[in-house]
Amino acid sequence: MSNLAPPCGPGSALRSGREDSVFSTGPESIMARLVMKFGGTSVANIERIRNVAQHVKREVDAGNQVAVVVSAMSGKTNELVAWCREASVLHDAREYDAVVASGELVTAGLLAIALQDIGVQARSWQGWQIPILTDNAHGSARIESVDGSDIVKRFTEREEVAVIAGFQGVHKETGRVTTLGRGGSDTSAVAIAAAIGADRCDIYTDVDGVYTTDPRIVPKARKLEKVAFEEMLEMASLGAKVLQVRSVELAMVHKVRTFVRSSFDDPKNPTEGTLICDEEEIVEQQVITGIAFSRDEAQITLRRVADKPGVAAAIFVPLADANINVDMIIQVVSGDGAKTDITFTVPTAEYDRATAILGKAKEQIGFEAVEGATDVVKISAIGVGMRSHAGVAAKAFKALAEKGINIRAITTSEIKFSVLIDKDYTELAVRTLHSLYGLDKV
Amino acid sequence: MSNLAPPCGPGSALRSGREDSVFSTGPESIMARLVMKFGGTSVANIERIRNVAQHVKREVDAGNQVAVVVSAMSGKTNELVAWCREASVLHDAREYDAVVASGELVTAGLLAIALQDIGVQARSWQGWQIPILTDNAHGSARIESVDGSDIVKRFTEREEVAVIAGFQGVHKETGRVTTLGRGGSDTSAVAIAAAIGADRCDIYTDVDGVYTTDPRIVPKARKLEKVAFEEMLEMASLGAKVLQVRSVELAMVHKVRTFVRSSFDDPKNPTEGTLICDEEEIVEQQVITGIAFSRDEAQITLRRVADKPGVAAAIFVPLADANINVDMIIQVVSGDGAKTDITFTVPTAEYDRATAILGKAKEQIGFEAVEGATDVVKISAIGVGMRSHAGVAAKAFKALAEKGINIRAITTSEIKFSVLIDKDYTELAVRTLHSLYGLDKV
Repeated sequence: MSNLAPPCGPGSALRSGREDSVFSTGPESIMARLVMKFGGTSVANIERIRNVAQHVKREVDAGNQVAVVVSAMSGKTNELVAWCREASVLHDAREYDAVVASGELVTAGLLAIALQDIGVQARSWQGWQIPILTDNAHGSARIESVDGSDIVKRFTEREEVAVIAGFQGVHKETGRVTTLGRGGSDTSAVAIAAAIGADRCDIYTDVDGVYTTDPRIVPKARKLEKVAFEEMLEMASLGAKVLQVRSVELAMVHKVRTFVRSSFDDPKNPTEGTLICDEEEIVEQQVITGIAFSRDEAQITLRRVADKPGVAAAIFVPLADANINVDMIIQVVSGDGAKTDITFTVPTAEYDRATAILGKAKEQIGFEAVEGATDVVKISAIGVGMRSHAGVAAKAFKALAEKGINIRAITTSEIKFSVLIDKDYTELAVRTLHSLYGLDKV
Repeated sequence: MSNLAPPCGPGSALRSGREDSVFSTGPESIMARLVMKFGGTSVANIERIRNVAQHVKREVDAGNQVAVVVSAMSGKTNELVAWCREASVLHDAREYDAVVASGELVTAGLLAIALQDIGVQARSWQGWQIPILTDNAHGSARIESVDGSDIVKRFTEREEVAVIAGFQGVHKETGRVTTLGRGGSDTSAVAIAAAIGADRCDIYTDVDGVYTTDPRIVPKARKLEKVAFEEMLEMASLGAKVLQVRSVELAMVHKVRTFVRSSFDDPKNPTEGTLICDEEEIVEQQVITGIAFSRDEAQITLRRVADKPGVAAAIFVPLADANINVDMIIQVVSGDGAKTDITFTVPTAEYDRATAILGKAKEQIGFEAVEGATDVVKISAIGVGMRSHAGVAAKAFKALAEKGINIRAITTSEIKFSVLIDKDYTELAVRTLHSLYGLDKV
């Protein structure tokens, strides 16, 4: 996302102008510019869309300049995807995008109508009208630039709310409609926020914030007041489904202060949600901020691989060529020293393809047997505090061992560690780590 | 539609080039360029869309260059319209258009996928991508220009079918999406045909052609082989629902040879349908070509109106100001000569508004009573042969009188006459005229 061009032209000029004037000290500084994003369940029907309009009205009445980003009404995208599949299993990604992006157009128009109905000036924007320019990776395109100038101009000249169809853009050269992948509306929202120089980006969803872990598994999970961008990025990558990974990357690069909050609150009296922000904004930093888990892991072990140079390449290059994403890798020397066991994980959906590919390359790699397990889970603990604290992970290994939980693999990075364990122990392990690092609600 | 700009730029150049070369005599002259249009019932689901793909493949396999125009899947437009109304009774027409035009995008993408699936090169086009430029009469916009150059270029360079979302365009100045009104995809098809210099425009529908009258009322109704543009225009205006009026106007102005035919035929062995063409192409011209009827008429009579100058203006100007379309008008002098009765018709939906407006203006107009009837029907006989035959209408009045049918009002033009009668006599009157003018199937 680092290649998102800075906004240029009149929009940029206006923004700078505003920052110089309104955001100087003085009474006008109450006014803010913000992006509000509403997902599928928040706009599931006209009644819910009216509710969203009330959320928007609250911010407009407070004197704010508002751009709203919407997803398709829940169920609509799935319907469109199903039709594409029915028309052809090997459907053209460009046509798929043209079909699937239509759902957001509907919501954007309907929300603009609902806003006008309660006296709020509003107009809808389709991706190509702004335009939101992307590369040509149809189905999971990356935003390259957003021209926020017209939107900002209309904030100032007409006090008009911009209602933007999320999830989509248009290819910079062909002019064909692109989509940003599942959850792409989050990315649209953050990109718009960056382009119009928004003070914050509010992601309204069906949960009221980011939790220390999944509250369905750990009733003592706490809502976090603030999470650092880096932490949120790890959480999103490691299984927390609250935000699309790319939206967090983009927020981090452009330093967009992003709130995750609930659209199911009373629009007149909403709760604050969780702020995703720069590490420096978080005064009392915990060592560990959250525990994530992903059941989408399968383990593959190659037994008695010849321990010689080039063997890792022989294993992992064919998998990479097949677009199979390998995650955790560990290597254990066998008894006799000349052979080694290599264990790694792949997404569950790729397990069969991966073992088939390895089976074919058996001669070339040189191993005795391939073993695997899909009944495994990856548990991760994330926190920027790990940087300045030693022995954080070791404490976890001990606690899990005491509960009789066997660790199959470990990976660590500067701000997280992950363990692979038997799926049966998921809840026990998550609860154990949640308590261990003092995350339980008191 | 007369203001549809001629295609300009490379498209136009290419077209002329083709006409000079391919359409000279010689074996290549078999190849044609055509537009195929499919309405909502023809693309109701994926199975029907696959069937449409087979129709297109037939034409491509015959060596033709094909542009396809599609409507939304049947029911989809109604769903979108209902949502707009639910969001606000007074919805912004620009937002309504943005919402409602999305249905055609879905069909266009899906048909492109279905075509590719059977080995036909194809891509979808949204209205703004072509672009189809319109005025800003949102909800019933008029096409002002169509740039067919890219489509024609891709015919030649890639042998690619263009699948175009019907019913929509984009406003030439604001860049906002517009729609062309109900049945607007017919107009899209004819406009595209004019822009790319198509040899013909095939309108596929759920009937297999244009009939001498509605076969549900007259089982002896015959399918017409050819209808003159002027006749079709009158038929569409007078109640025949087979084509949008504006599409016929446009076809007439640009001399687009248009076929009405069935999408429910076997794609491998379709019937020909009805050709709508220039009068000169029709060798054996009947005096009367068809009988149309419209139940959407209400009669209003003002009793004992003062017979003085300016009274007609006093009646009809307020109705015109209220956008009420007055159709048949007759004036009968009352017994004493100083007073007159004035009868006219309005669309049924406007009946209450019209009588209310007249009630308010009673003093000013000066009449004794307003009477009305909504149980009336307008029966029309249409034929370019009327120009050269005298007494055609008189023959009808006599035949209807013989059946005891009372005529409430009459209007005539060069190529049609209409009578207003009691609704109860609809079928009898239509059958009587159908036989009278020799239209019955033998």
